[in-house]
Amino acid sequence: MYVNDILSMIEKQRDEVEKELLLNLDSDVQMVNEVASYVFESGGKRLRPVFLILSSLLCGYDGYRTAALSGVVEYIHTATLLHDDVIDGAMYRRGRKSANTVFGNDITVLCGDFLYSRAFMNLVKDGNPEIQMTLAVAARTMSEGEVFQLIKTADIKITMDDYLKIINSKTAILFSSCCEIGALLGGQSVDKRAALRDFGRNLGIAFQMSDDILDYLGDEAKTGKKPGTDLKEGKITLPVIVLLENAAEEEKVKVREIIVNENSDEENLNYIIDLMKKYDVKRKSEEILDRYSAKAKENLKLFPENKYREALESLADYMIKREK
Amino acid sequence: MYVNDILSMIEKQRDEVEKELLLNLDSDVQMVNEVASYVFESGGKRLRPVFLILSSLLCGYDGYRTAALSGVVEYIHTATLLHDDVIDGAMYRRGRKSANTVFGNDITVLCGDFLYSRAFMNLVKDGNPEIQMTLAVAARTMSEGEVFQLIKTADIKITMDDYLKIINSKTAILFSSCCEIGALLGGQSVDKRAALRDFGRNLGIAFQMSDDILDYLGDEAKTGKKPGTDLKEGKITLPVIVLLENAAEEEKVKVREIIVNENSDEENLNYIIDLMKKYDVKRKSEEILDRYSAKAKENLKLFPENKYREALESLADYMIKREK
Repeated sequence: MYVNDILSMIEKQRDEVEKELLLNLDSDVQMVNEVASYVFESGGKRLRPVFLILSSLLCGYDGYRTAALSGVVEYIHTATLLHDDVIDGAMYRRGRKSANTVFGNDITVLCGDFLYSRAFMNLVKDGNPEIQMTLAVAARTMSEGEVFQLIKTADIKITMDDYLKIINSKTAILFSSCCEIGALLGGQSVDKRAALRDFGRNLGIAFQMSDDILDYLGDEAKTGKKPGTDLKEGKITLPVIVLLENAAEEEKVKVREIIVNENSDEENLNYIIDLMKKYDVKRKSEEILDRYSAKAKENLKLFPENKYREALESLADYMIKREK
Repeated sequence: MYVNDILSMIEKQRDEVEKELLLNLDSDVQMVNEVASYVFESGGKRLRPVFLILSSLLCGYDGYRTAALSGVVEYIHTATLLHDDVIDGAMYRRGRKSANTVFGNDITVLCGDFLYSRAFMNLVKDGNPEIQMTLAVAARTMSEGEVFQLIKTADIKITMDDYLKIINSKTAILFSSCCEIGALLGGQSVDKRAALRDFGRNLGIAFQMSDDILDYLGDEAKTGKKPGTDLKEGKITLPVIVLLENAAEEEKVKVREIIVNENSDEENLNYIIDLMKKYDVKRKSEEILDRYSAKAKENLKLFPENKYREALESLADYMIKREK
């Protein structure tokens, strides 16, 4: 199934999510609405809502709660983006100036807090304790994961397990929650709920790994990003971990030195990228990623073969194949 | 009733709150627990829990939910303190280095988020939708109020209404929520719920006004703070508003100039403080404050005269009389 066909199939629901996102920006402090509108009107793929919508439809639910809860998830996601951009000092987001660049760090942190509280209000309105707890745990895991990632900055002793923990927190848990919410809205069995939760997690892990591979080994013309951003920020991701597993001892020493000293000039970046090419790091990383992607599709087998399942499967492929 | 007698009366409940605060610092990311412990172990008067406890007792409730919900309120309060200290670049908090000084801005923002999410989890566990909504609205109002305060920084056109809106958001709404939660725990009538909500709000306003008066006109030996911090941060509070209402035209011009240019050196600060003394600003400000304090006590008249009501009344006096 092509992405455009999938998006057309859920056009009505996606429109409702867009309305929902702007509907709640009802602060009597105009600046709050202004910052939030700036962020939401700058687009973004609304991937999490798409997964929530499709999971709900797969589980037989197509009511108004889908848009409301998609809004909640997107508010939580956006709150974390706002806080992350402040923390990373990011200048740009989605191809235009980041909120912190335009409005300053102070207001951006507070607008993140506003979106958290707005998400929380709408979750209380929805009233389902299981959905509430799913997202409360996700929010908690996300903030813990960010702290963990900060601690592990430029730490060359980072393990594959540490890396998985970080990407589970920063990406996979919220995808996982979206898919699980679909099952909860559809009143599905414990088994199916767990299957969709696992689908979302595996998919989220594969998605983040794909992003991390592209950061070093993507084609700048296609990704639109300069390679090596993660290296600059001291984030040690899959390609570096795979490289360190494969490189010769003296190469490892040099790579570690570059990372520890946060010395990511062009020469050093090119040195690392060349090593990655030498050791076929892209293919090796993609093999790891493919395992998660395959697991994700396996998780869907519990569900009947219909267009929604097919859409979720196709989307899982699309998300990790982009820009390859 | 003396403060110490009040505190002894609710010693058991206060101990449970202290346990509760540390109980939930169970992150498997040790740094998160470390930051949170640092903040909670640095003391603090736990004023909000005290009001929640006394309101609950006044309403006939003395169960385990008091400690759980006091914990929630204190987590929300602490999350806002952490974010505020980052925004204000505060070096100290409660007489020792602030969390942002010790752990850095990044980790401090994220630990604030962690406490928000932890508060939210415990609110979901508690399961009462009215209490959840009360605190969701409070959290929303607090973040909006902080943005509003930032916008109004050094804005000499600030009105008394703007000021009231700011202190309602930053202080009064959470006290109001604490007292309202007491009524909800005790299953009280709508009237009594509203009365306790209003009590908390009026008390919170009086408390913040008292703090703002002391910032200019307090005795440094007693408050332990250098006067004029608010002026330095461009926060225009009650004493300045009262001064501008009373000063002669040429004095107003100079005061406005000092504020707009954020020129708060010692000479200018002393100029303003001398003017405040000349126009009896302390007494005039206290008259305004006393109206809120009186209203707060009026709000309690709906309740039987017992030791809990007496404790709340005495505490209301104590909170605004400190360091006078």
